[in-house]
Amino acid sequence: MTRHDGRAVAELRPVQMDTNYLMHPEGSVLITVGNTKVICTATIEDKVPGFLRGQGKGWITAEYSMLPRATESRTRREASAGKVSGRTMEIQRLIGRALRAVVDLEALGERTIWIDCDVIQADGGTRTASITGAFVAMTQAIAKFADMKELPKFPVTDYLAATSVGMIDEIGAVLDLNYVEDVDAAVDMNIVMTGAGRFVELQGTGEEATFSRQELNDLLALGEQGVAALVELQKEALGDIALRVGK
Amino acid sequence: MTRHDGRAVAELRPVQMDTNYLMHPEGSVLITVGNTKVICTATIEDKVPGFLRGQGKGWITAEYSMLPRATESRTRREASAGKVSGRTMEIQRLIGRALRAVVDLEALGERTIWIDCDVIQADGGTRTASITGAFVAMTQAIAKFADMKELPKFPVTDYLAATSVGMIDEIGAVLDLNYVEDVDAAVDMNIVMTGAGRFVELQGTGEEATFSRQELNDLLALGEQGVAALVELQKEALGDIALRVGK
Amino acid sequence: MTRHDGRAVAELRPVQMDTNYLMHPEGSVLITVGNTKVICTATIEDKVPGFLRGQGKGWITAEYSMLPRATESRTRREASAGKVSGRTMEIQRLIGRALRAVVDLEALGERTIWIDCDVIQADGGTRTASITGAFVAMTQAIAKFADMKELPKFPVTDYLAATSVGMIDEIGAVLDLNYVEDVDAAVDMNIVMTGAGRFVELQGTGEEATFSRQELNDLLALGEQGVAALVELQKEALGDIALRVGK
Amino acid sequence: MTRHDGRAVAELRPVQMDTNYLMHPEGSVLITVGNTKVICTATIEDKVPGFLRGQGKGWITAEYSMLPRATESRTRREASAGKVSGRTMEIQRLIGRALRAVVDLEALGERTIWIDCDVIQADGGTRTASITGAFVAMTQAIAKFADMKELPKFPVTDYLAATSVGMIDEIGAVLDLNYVEDVDAAVDMNIVMTGAGRFVELQGTGEEATFSRQELNDLLALGEQGVAALVELQKEALGDIALRVGK
Amino acid sequence: MTRHDGRAVAELRPVQMDTNYLMHPEGSVLITVGNTKVICTATIEDKVPGFLRGQGKGWITAEYSMLPRATESRTRREASAGKVSGRTMEIQRLIGRALRAVVDLEALGERTIWIDCDVIQADGGTRTASITGAFVAMTQAIAKFADMKELPKFPVTDYLAATSVGMIDEIGAVLDLNYVEDVDAAVDMNIVMTGAGRFVELQGTGEEATFSRQELNDLLALGEQGVAALVELQKEALGDIALRVGK
Amino acid sequence: MTRHDGRAVAELRPVQMDTNYLMHPEGSVLITVGNTKVICTATIEDKVPGFLRGQGKGWITAEYSMLPRATESRTRREASAGKVSGRTMEIQRLIGRALRAVVDLEALGERTIWIDCDVIQADGGTRTASITGAFVAMTQAIAKFADMKELPKFPVTDYLAATSVGMIDEIGAVLDLNYVEDVDAAVDMNIVMTGAGRFVELQGTGEEATFSRQELNDLLALGEQGVAALVELQKEALGDIALRVGK
Repeated sequence: MTRHDGRAVAELRPVQMDTNYLMHPEGSVLITVGNTKVICTATIEDKVPGFLRGQGKGWITAEYSMLPRATESRTRREASAGKVSGRTMEIQRLIGRALRAVVDLEALGERTIWIDCDVIQADGGTRTASITGAFVAMTQAIAKFADMKELPKFPVTDYLAATSVGMIDEIGAVLDLNYVEDVDAAVDMNIVMTGAGRFVELQGTGEEATFSRQELNDLLALGEQGVAALVELQKEALGDIALRVGK
Repeated sequence: MTRHDGRAVAELRPVQMDTNYLMHPEGSVLITVGNTKVICTATIEDKVPGFLRGQGKGWITAEYSMLPRATESRTRREASAGKVSGRTMEIQRLIGRALRAVVDLEALGERTIWIDCDVIQADGGTRTASITGAFVAMTQAIAKFADMKELPKFPVTDYLAATSVGMIDEIGAVLDLNYVEDVDAAVDMNIVMTGAGRFVELQGTGEEATFSRQELNDLLALGEQGVAALVELQKEALGDIALRVGK
Repeated sequence: MTRHDGRAVAELRPVQMDTNYLMHPEGSVLITVGNTKVICTATIEDKVPGFLRGQGKGWITAEYSMLPRATESRTRREASAGKVSGRTMEIQRLIGRALRAVVDLEALGERTIWIDCDVIQADGGTRTASITGAFVAMTQAIAKFADMKELPKFPVTDYLAATSVGMIDEIGAVLDLNYVEDVDAAVDMNIVMTGAGRFVELQGTGEEATFSRQELNDLLALGEQGVAALVELQKEALGDIALRVGK
Repeated sequence: MTRHDGRAVAELRPVQMDTNYLMHPEGSVLITVGNTKVICTATIEDKVPGFLRGQGKGWITAEYSMLPRATESRTRREASAGKVSGRTMEIQRLIGRALRAVVDLEALGERTIWIDCDVIQADGGTRTASITGAFVAMTQAIAKFADMKELPKFPVTDYLAATSVGMIDEIGAVLDLNYVEDVDAAVDMNIVMTGAGRFVELQGTGEEATFSRQELNDLLALGEQGVAALVELQKEALGDIALRVGK
Repeated sequence: MTRHDGRAVAELRPVQMDTNYLMHPEGSVLITVGNTKVICTATIEDKVPGFLRGQGKGWITAEYSMLPRATESRTRREASAGKVSGRTMEIQRLIGRALRAVVDLEALGERTIWIDCDVIQADGGTRTASITGAFVAMTQAIAKFADMKELPKFPVTDYLAATSVGMIDEIGAVLDLNYVEDVDAAVDMNIVMTGAGRFVELQGTGEEATFSRQELNDLLALGEQGVAALVELQKEALGDIALRVGK
Repeated sequence: MTRHDGRAVAELRPVQMDTNYLMHPEGSVLITVGNTKVICTATIEDKVPGFLRGQGKGWITAEYSMLPRATESRTRREASAGKVSGRTMEIQRLIGRALRAVVDLEALGERTIWIDCDVIQADGGTRTASITGAFVAMTQAIAKFADMKELPKFPVTDYLAATSVGMIDEIGAVLDLNYVEDVDAAVDMNIVMTGAGRFVELQGTGEEATFSRQELNDLLALGEQGVAALVELQKEALGDIALRVGK
């Protein structure tokens, strides 16, 4: 049996990153992964949340949202519902935490980077696309900021990208699930890694299912491959700025 | 003195309407008016709000939102704030009311059309661009729906478009204000009209200022011109469907 | 055909303004327009909202509410619902904006005027009665305040009143719609004007209907007449204070 | 030492009850107790809350609110705050519970009586004035309803009124505290009683103070006197309907 | 007829107070009254609410909650509902007010004592058990605090305990109602008293019923007995600290 | 260097599970892991959420909360804040999802199991203790329910327990982190596994840190050991019911 859209098990969907997508933000990217499209922006604000004040350290926080018709049937707006769903909060916390792992927050100084990921069209993998795109938007914004403020050190310490892997019946482990595969998958894992190949986040879930140690190993191998390919695309998208990461 | 961006007083900004912009919605348009960009979608749902149930009539309701970085500085998300602002509510009510004026709600039957207008980039005139774009998305969605359900009559009775006009010191009445002009304008008026040249909504406001009857006449003349031009662009964007409006 | 309550098309309902209606507020009016009754109060607070701080300018903000049984059937309290409706927000914004057009905010200094309009009984035209009554309550409060603080200039620059006009089938344009007429009207327009006869706000709406330029002219002519009559009544109600407006 | 406003310790403030105060509600009263003024209305709805459905019994529920400038300094609206305060909830629950003690809920049938008490002007004793006025508004609404539906039995079984008593330094127990006395009182007690002289609610509170059994007895004696006087005034206000209570 | 659980009418259920129940709080008690179990904790914070700032006085505030399955059927969490119920607010206000009657707030200084009462298991009388237990937790926390800060005076001026009494058909007045009795009781009264036998709060309620002066006297007599017994148990639980109260 | 509390790297803290801890719930456990104490209860309700209705399948949903003084300093109640935090939502979703992996939802029928986990005292590992305890409470409730309803099959298919592992500087991988270790740990991983040794959830996070594949392997090995030991304790706690799991 082959994958629903004909891809090989270890094949990413076509990925594109349009940088400087919007006129106002300091960093902005439209990331396209197959039919999934997310606008990622980065904003640097000259203050930190209360719990960090006076420590000489910065912070990164993320917000995530979907247009009501990013999905097959219309999803109610969280603003109308008057509250943010548990799923959205989980994703927001994940994006912020992941990015903080590759930014030297002391080098950033007492500033907050606001990441906004708005899903224009959803076809699976919106949270991993958000992380991958947000890294690019954030790095652009930091580059402008570092020049303007003459920061002594470039605060981005490594690349960061994310993808999903999963176990599908009769196929096994596959890379970069689209929506149909995501629904079918017994096990679904999001993997966030650095350019150096180290793990930042690993979230594996058996929805009404479980997985063995061997299956875990297969999933991790695919994820490592996928992230490495995404990091190459980030370098291209960042152009000259790419050289400053980790320096 | 001339306008900030060199336009003539009666000149619209460049307008573009990309139809079928998203894969999921029945109708979707990316409308671009100068630097203002709004994604408009239309969704038809097979039920009506409680107050209309059993009357054999449909309804149209609209929601409006801006990405946090659609604007120069970051705007807080309404989902995070936990409530929709007064400005947003005003705009949502305006869009819904305006579209209802050109739809035969009995011909639609007991269905609700959900209009979603998401501002990707803002440079003045987001509410009028939303109305103009939403009309196109809605008409597309209705066309698909009318075919599928074999409605006896096409429910869209006329075209509908909107623009803004305003009074600027040392220039006078101008058409289609961008953000800088909007801030400068002593008087600001939103005009919604039909393809037949009748008024649907007129909202004129002097922010800490007032206007005379003569100034009002000048503003209305410009608005009529602008809307007529926008209706021509809507016809182009709709292609074959354009012929069904008002039939 | 004649009007529902026998009035001529250009005839206002009986209007009364009871000043100093409550013991606590600096300015308070019970305005009665036909069966519509609104308590309007004004409170002056010695600070301004954050966005104005340090600019030497004041602000005017308004809140509007209806008693649950101001209406034919009981309306749910917004406090119980936990949120202010879109209609209420629209009205609140309108009242505040209208009053700001006739107050010299620099002369007021860094203070906020809180306007509260509470509808005790509703029979159409509550928002225009609120504006007309609020102007009187505000002017009284400002007069007391100007004396107490010895303001160099009286900050109210002109009179301000509001009324509604509408198009009714088989009758045409009429002035000051009561509730039954408001429900019947195809077109409904709220007009806010100054004592000098200049427009401050114009909000014309065709609810599932449209209107021509000629109809608009007829409506405006009626509105001008109505506002002029209301301004005369405001002068009477204000007594000696009336002479200080615009000086 | 004598009372602040010259009253005897056992003297109520002047009380007035204007029935049929509003045009829309089935029962409405403006109750005036000294400078305290409350509009009380009653609305009968043909359904009961979920927990009572199918039991053949009715329900009475109350809502209470103050205009922002009912008080000396402006109180923030609960609708703007987005939630009802603990004080308001306590009062609402008290009013509903008190009225339920004198209504035969089976005789009412599966209906809900909504009581709305809106304080127009506050000078102490707003909750007890609300109960006293609400009883009159409710009885009027029930009388109309009983006639219309030809209820076999008049559901109001007895009169119900409320007043406050308190201990003031150097004066001792006093009846019907106004605002200044309320602030001064070490002990404050609200007493709700029936026409037959039985207790319905007793809420005595020492705010940073305590009271002895003897002081309690003195307070109760005053309260009994005050309620009896209020019941006589209710009978007058109700006119012919007064004869149907308890029959 | 005898009581449901065989107790005499003037008999408390078995009461136990486990002090230092939790490791983190400065004062904590698990109070058990029959099957009712409440964890009470006290926290002293070095600031006061805005309305008290700069007056050299402290404050005591309480929060109350029930585990969802403290009750026979599951109660929805108030955090999930997004708001605190009227019943909870009433109880919270009662607990705080009661404790403030026996604390010298000037001697406490500008500090807030937070009382938390969490009902683990409910079988009637949770609010009175909360007050009785909270007094112990608070006194422990204050004792530690008084030592640490070397307060010149011990701020707790007297003991404070609470119980409920009620009228049950065919039995009459009974002390310390459990849940089954509470549901049966026509009249229910909560009594909060000091160690010196003075009243702090008295809340008597006839739920769809009324009570005479004689019945009130019977209820008060039982309540006085119950509270006196509870105060003895508090002294035991407090050990050495007991001697500092009122000194 | 050794662990803060002297444990070996692969040593769990002392674990205790008091079953039938509360009188009302069908299943209830007080689980103690070191100083962490959580009350877990299970409630079976005879309906399912809307999205599952009519599919013959059950559902499991979980709620999690901490007493304000479960922690070193007082944590604000989510009920008072009016919303559930992102952290809480994440934990609630995790607990529900984990338990669903070992319950045959078809065998359960159209019922919802509500799991409530209330942290009485927190010292690290509250979410994993919640899962481990909730499994026991749920299995007890299901056993009673299966008997009462004569379910053809026992719906619990396997054991389920959870623990945390982490990387600590100068020590390396350790099992079952207490609060102090959790704060110190560069990498923190929650592992949920079945009695059969399969993974259900894996959530590894580098907070401002990353981890290698080798470190991941070390962490997984410890986690497997810890979960196996916890499952043995669950079997003891369940007594006879233990034999029905997976049958």
